This record gives sequence, structure tokens and C-alpha cells, in this order.
Amino acid sequence: MVASSVVNTYPLSNYTFGTKEPKMEKDTSVADRLARMKVNYMKEGMRTSVEGILLVQEHNHPHILLLQIGNTFCKLPGGRLKPGENEIEGLKRKLCSKLAANSPSFQPNWQIGECVATWWRPNFETVMYPYCPPHITKPKECKKLFLVHLSEREYFAVPKNLKLLAVPLFELYDNVQRYGPVISTIPQQLSRFQFNMNTQFAAGGGGSVDLLEVQNTGVDTGLTCIHPIPWHEAPESEMGLDKISKGAASTHVPAEATTRHKAY
Amino acid sequence: MVASSVVNTYPLSNYTFGTKEPKMEKDTSVADRLARMKVNYMKEGMRTSVEGILLVQEHNHPHILLLQIGNTFCKLPGGRLKPGENEIEGLKRKLCSKLAANSPSFQPNWQIGECVATWWRPNFETVMYPYCPPHITKPKECKKLFLVHLSEREYFAVPKNLKLLAVPLFELYDNVQRYGPVISTIPQQLSRFQFNMNTQFAAGGGGSVDLLEVQNTGVDTGLTCIHPIPWHEAPESEMGLDKISKGAASTHVPAEATTRHKAY
Repeated sequence: MVASSVVNTYPLSNYTFGTKEPKMEKDTSVADRLARMKVNYMKEGMRTSVEGILLVQEHNHPHILLLQIGNTFCKLPGGRLKPGENEIEGLKRKLCSKLAANSPSFQPNWQIGECVATWWRPNFETVMYPYCPPHITKPKECKKLFLVHLSEREYFAVPKNLKLLAVPLFELYDNVQRYGPVISTIPQQLSRFQFNMNTQFAAGGGGSVDLLEVQNTGVDTGLTCIHPIPWHEAPESEMGLDKISKGAASTHVPAEATTRHKAY
Repeated sequence: MVASSVVNTYPLSNYTFGTKEPKMEKDTSVADRLARMKVNYMKEGMRTSVEGILLVQEHNHPHILLLQIGNTFCKLPGGRLKPGENEIEGLKRKLCSKLAANSPSFQPNWQIGECVATWWRPNFETVMYPYCPPHITKPKECKKLFLVHLSEREYFAVPKNLKLLAVPLFELYDNVQRYGPVISTIPQQLSRFQFNMNTQFAAGGGGSVDLLEVQNTGVDTGLTCIHPIPWHEAPESEMGLDKISKGAASTHVPAEATTRHKAY
């Protein structure tokens, strides 16, 4: 584990994004999810889940990578540990499942950093707290958020049913309505870190920067996607080429972003 | 500085509280405060302030010590650094000014721990953010919150115009209306720590525990003071006796607490 009060962030354009087979949600409704949670609890006891906070920078401001399911719901990459599984190893496994290419030669070098938050689920309900309530002796889930220090360049493969977004801290802050209590307070949890915003671009890069800009439509469509990450349909056999190539930028999905100017 | 993911907390009843001369606020209005901030900025540049998060435990749940001014406004002990002053030394100076007896022999052994949050004031306005907004090159204030590891027993002297409260995390959480954005998200910032709740009482203690209990009036009076800390009018010449004595508990101000059962 890497523990440091300085976090290096690199430009979004340093990273290359492809797709891979869909990773479907196991449950189709919240009720199903809570029911499955209950069944698993009976078999395995408290659920432990781990999630990663992956940071990039754009316009000299840290952005967090979120996976969007459907049109509105966002989540951090991560998931449930197997019984007895080590937190760090489990998080690496989950990050690979959600964001790495299937080919073992293109696995990102996940550097798991500090735990920045712990959330507790006292009951088989959606509500979680950043402490275990004092009268709760058997919480149903403990979720830990870890900082993940990204290398200067990486290739990510995003499941086809998900969209990867780079969301600025100022969009998350004070926005519990859209992002929920866990994700919307990440800015406060990261505030103790010093961000070292590296601005160098990857070799051969630079061609797609205009596509990464926020396109402010001036209209709040209710679908606020800030800095959607461009991704392309590169077949995995070509990944070696795509890894730091910006030529593939021409197949980027156009940004559909609107901005909220809370802190500008 | 002490850096650890484990935080030892001791029962509120381990600590003894006296009073000292009032520490009046320098400003009588928010407008005055912002005007003074502007004048100081012109002279000294960005204001740097430091605040301490002092933790005790009650009912196996962490509580934070807050200073209450008047009937509703709460703040963390701390204040503005002198130009060039070291953060840790400055915080110790401020903690002494707000919470220590005047006698040098009864100064608490302040163990300043990790920085848990940083807040930025972009303009001479009340609003602060847990990041420096990207277009702001000259923020007007940077406020840092540090964990303060309390010893097993301490004597605190509270200025007569202030009231010291021990407020449970579950009262602060999701309560921006009462505590503001900085204090209400402390539970999330502390969630990564493991609390080691020590339950031993100070030698000779135990007599005043009933006075420390929350008196739930069942009525939300709008003045929610959770676990107000009992304090007494001990002359400072008697401090040696009072330090771990619970005999003085008879002069405790009765608790006027109501509870909010958000997380119970």
C-alpha cells in the first residue's frame, strides 16, 4: 500500500480507453439487491466491499473516474470481497474486472493507496453511515474507499454496458442528489491531500484534447455528464497500438456534457 | 506529529472542566469579520487557520468537542496562524488559548495528529470549498483541520462566554443546517480511522456519570445540545484538586440535551 499526502495526477488525455464485453449488474432492482445481500449474509456474514478512487486532472483540477450505468446512476469501480480475501488484492481484482483489458499483458499497474473512507450498512437497507451506529453489533456491510494512484499512462477497457466519466471534484461537492452520500463527500475526504497536477501529455498525444473539453450546452438536461471519457471500439488485438495512441480519438463518442458552475 | 489509523478515545468522564476569563469574538457580525479579513489580507496575504478535532467517547461512540457561542453557533477550537507560524505550533497555541488553564503547569499535552481536511475560501465571503477552485489563483484563506489525540485524562479551562459540548458523530452527520459544511462532514473524514474506545474511568471518578447522560426531553427545542459537557466554576487556584476529582461534579451545569435519533 502507498501512503502519501501528495497525490500525482496526470491529464485525462494521457489515458487511453477501449471497450470489452458487458459486465451486467447481478440485480435488476434495489429490492433484488437487498434480498441477495440478505441471502449472502446468512451464508458468509458481513459483506465487505472495496472501491477505488482513480484520479486524473483536467484544467488543473482533479477529476474522479466513475462508471455510469444507464443514464443517471454512477458508481466507483470496485465490489464485494470474497470471504477472507485481502482488501488490497480484492480491490485489484475488482479494478481489473471493471477496467482492465482481458489480456494479462495490458493490466494497469494498480497502486492502491490510503483508505479514505469507511461506510457501514446497519441493516438490509440502502442507507449507510460513515460510522457504525453505536447500538449496531452486527452491521450488514462495511465498504471501504481507497485511493488508487494511477501511472502516468494506462489503457483501460470499459465494459460495453457502462460509460466511464471523469467527474471534477467541484461537480461532486455538495451534490448528494445526483451522486449519493458516499460519492458526493469524496471531495472533503480528499481535501487533506496535496495534488501534484502533472501537465505533460503522453508521447504522440495532444490530438484529441479538443474532444475532451466540456461542451457546455447551456441547458441542464438532467443528464449532467461532466467530461465523459472518450472511448473507442478498438479490438483487443490492437491494444498494443492503442495504448498510447491518440489516432483512435476519431472514434471517440462525442462529449454530451453540461456544466454546473458551483465553484467557478 | 502523530500519524496513525488507530485513534484512542477515552470516556468524557475522564476529563475535568473548569472555566477561565472570557475570550470575546473579535467581530460582532459576519460583515465585520469579512471586512477585517480583507484588511488582514492586504497586510499579510492569505489567512491560514488551523482547528483541532478533539475526541472523547460516550456510549461506545466518538464525540467531538465543540465550542458553542451564544445559543446556536458551534466552532472547533483553533484560529488564525501568525504570519510564518508553524501549523502544529500554531494549533497548540490556539488550543491553549481556548481550552487550557492559564497556569503553565496544567497545560494539556496536545498531541497533534493527522490533517483530516483542508478548506479554501476563494473570496471574502463565507463560502468555503474542500478544494481550491481551479480558476482561483489567490485564495483568501486556507483552513486545516487536525486530529488532536487527547491523553487519558486532561483538565480543560473553558472561557466563560463559551460552552463546551461533546457532540456525537451521528449528530453531526448530514446536519449541515446546524453545524455548517465544515463540521458536518467531519464524520466522513474520520471514517477511515479505527476508534479504540477505551472505557476505563479516571481514578476516583464515576460519581458524575449520571449527570453526563443525555437527558432526552423528547422535544426538539431547536437548541440541540448533545452531551453538553459539565463544567464548574472552580477557581484556578484549585485546579490541582479538580484535575481528576469528580467531587466538583455537584456544580455541573445540568445537561440540557435533546437527542436526534438519526442513526439509532
